[in-house]
Amino acid sequence: MSHRSVDEYAAHVRALITPALPTDVDTVTVGAALGRVTAAAILSPVDLPLFRNSQMDGFAVVASDLATLLRTGAPVTLPIVGEVAAEPGTPLPLVPGTAVRIMTGAVVPEGADAVVPVEDTTATANTVTITRARASGEFVRNRGSDLKAGDALLPAGLRLASRHLAALAAAGIDEIEVRRRVRIVVISTGAELALGRRAEPGEIYDSNSTALTAAATACGAEVTYAIHPVEDAVSQFRGSLLVGASNADLILTSGGISLGAYEVVREFWRANGGEVGHIAMQPGGPQASGVFNGVPVISFPGNPVSTQLSFEIFVAPILREAAGLPAAHRQTRTLMADLRSAAGTRQFLRGRALPEGLVEVVGGPSSHLVAGLAASDLLLDIPEDITELKAGGPVETIDL
Amino acid sequence: MSHRSVDEYAAHVRALITPALPTDVDTVTVGAALGRVTAAAILSPVDLPLFRNSQMDGFAVVASDLATLLRTGAPVTLPIVGEVAAEPGTPLPLVPGTAVRIMTGAVVPEGADAVVPVEDTTATANTVTITRARASGEFVRNRGSDLKAGDALLPAGLRLASRHLAALAAAGIDEIEVRRRVRIVVISTGAELALGRRAEPGEIYDSNSTALTAAATACGAEVTYAIHPVEDAVSQFRGSLLVGASNADLILTSGGISLGAYEVVREFWRANGGEVGHIAMQPGGPQASGVFNGVPVISFPGNPVSTQLSFEIFVAPILREAAGLPAAHRQTRTLMADLRSAAGTRQFLRGRALPEGLVEVVGGPSSHLVAGLAASDLLLDIPEDITELKAGGPVETIDL
Repeated sequence: MSHRSVDEYAAHVRALITPALPTDVDTVTVGAALGRVTAAAILSPVDLPLFRNSQMDGFAVVASDLATLLRTGAPVTLPIVGEVAAEPGTPLPLVPGTAVRIMTGAVVPEGADAVVPVEDTTATANTVTITRARASGEFVRNRGSDLKAGDALLPAGLRLASRHLAALAAAGIDEIEVRRRVRIVVISTGAELALGRRAEPGEIYDSNSTALTAAATACGAEVTYAIHPVEDAVSQFRGSLLVGASNADLILTSGGISLGAYEVVREFWRANGGEVGHIAMQPGGPQASGVFNGVPVISFPGNPVSTQLSFEIFVAPILREAAGLPAAHRQTRTLMADLRSAAGTRQFLRGRALPEGLVEVVGGPSSHLVAGLAASDLLLDIPEDITELKAGGPVETIDL
Repeated sequence: MSHRSVDEYAAHVRALITPALPTDVDTVTVGAALGRVTAAAILSPVDLPLFRNSQMDGFAVVASDLATLLRTGAPVTLPIVGEVAAEPGTPLPLVPGTAVRIMTGAVVPEGADAVVPVEDTTATANTVTITRARASGEFVRNRGSDLKAGDALLPAGLRLASRHLAALAAAGIDEIEVRRRVRIVVISTGAELALGRRAEPGEIYDSNSTALTAAATACGAEVTYAIHPVEDAVSQFRGSLLVGASNADLILTSGGISLGAYEVVREFWRANGGEVGHIAMQPGGPQASGVFNGVPVISFPGNPVSTQLSFEIFVAPILREAAGLPAAHRQTRTLMADLRSAAGTRQFLRGRALPEGLVEVVGGPSSHLVAGLAASDLLLDIPEDITELKAGGPVETIDL
């Protein structure tokens, strides 16, 4: 796959990962389902509302008893024969020619077909005088008027927000089936990595396991293990893959794939049917991938910025889709300053959005500028064949 | 506060809540900090990169040793005197007139000032022939070229994404101080609510505690308790507030504030210095608020849609700000169909975004349509003085 395009390699990664995405479900309580994705459409087991109830505080009446009022404008006085609160119980049927005091949400008694809001009445202890006529059905919420039992309350593949959980709760649903999260194991390779201790001369702090774990989590996946082989040896890398393949749908590795000596990941894939090559992309040129014990493995280069951008370009879109999350926002913005880019390479420069649709580049193109990436809020996506862009001209950006 | 405007009441709620927002911090590990907000600017304790290192696999040289190549184009052959990998240790200084093999990320030996990529060389076991000259500094990443020790790695008030955590990890930072989350207690009132059991006639399933808990969580807050008083009595409501005030920065209640009888929240606030009134808003007209034992309490009406929209309009913007989350996206869209709205009331209709910037209304305006809200993805914000909008005309929308 020497010097494949970004789009070609993205398609290759997608073809590797897609068949491995989980199709099984988790059963979770509604209270624990925020952000999860419905495995199937959820039908309402009940009518919503559950019963015919009042939309207002007022008086439940037979609308035809207000005929005089409607015709002549003369107020109608009815005896108050009871009261219905929003509480358990079934009220007695309403006798025509009478009224019952009723609260919002309370059961509308059988026989009553309208509610007169309290604002349009004056009442004594025993009678109510109604000054505005209401038609049959007014201020009455019919059973099932929101949704009928058996109708779809929520569709399949929906990422659950608070309003969806509220609808489930309102229908009396306690537990639902959601898609199982994609399980990921992250493996950072490199003899130069210091983990959990002070870096000695020649060592650096591992940021890739932190970055990939957090980025995968933000994409709705679940990172089950982050592994750092103790020794930079092919046998240890294989051991890490064994752990990964038992605990993940997808393994992400960083480091060990460039052209130098001591490139354990590259050596492993060369010997085990993986692909190792170079993508026409900067940062992130060296890329490798393969399948180990049936689990797809995507191997990113070790430079922190390369790893993070490789994840964002090749893996994040697939995970976001699986989690029902929207794709990263793309937008054409206006360059603040001239910009140069290497020919034949798709550059992903780090940048910052400015007012009025402007964008500026942050730091240089080098793939070690991890603080520069942290100070950015978008990527500038410069096509392979572009070597120069002018200030004031358009540039495609991807929000981080 | 009879018939205050939405904006006036929003300002009142903000004035109540803002002084109660937490100013203390949590100390968390970097691995647990995704989505948290930095309490203060974080300075880098180290230079990044930590040491001068190679950007390429190749040969470290003294650039001036390539002067002949630069002048005449004739390749230069140098003896290879060693090798530096990306691993712990400090290499010997480079003797001028020699080269060392070097890997990406490895320490550049003292004395060397350029790296020649392996692609521009041919090597035997003991010598390397260089075919392209490099200037001093080329392919060398200087110590501190990304960030100097003592410089701000991250600003205060930043919501932490994976790239920020990566930069912290790269600087060897294990723990950071983040803003404590806003702690919230949710109280649902209403004798008609069935919780954790099948609804009897006249009862409904409580959806407000589910909705408010999930919505507050999605806004970056932490819900410590969701309480449902067993009896619909003022004394029980006060008891719930006592629990809330010991466990929360903010208490949200639903139900019990309309004009009927049995309105315990309204009764409580009337007797205890709260405000009870009506906002020129639909749904969500009745609103109440107060302070109990120093903790602000915002009391929403009990209708599920009223509760959810009241939270979204009055409380969510404050919580999102505190959590470093962006405000809900507002956008002018184009109405699919004519629309009527009550005069003197700001209507928040539920709607759905359609292609090409169009929007359609979902369900009716009534505040019991909890399934209708779940089927919506935005609100239409219809100003008080508008009674009619025409198909094809603009309407302000708020994404849910």
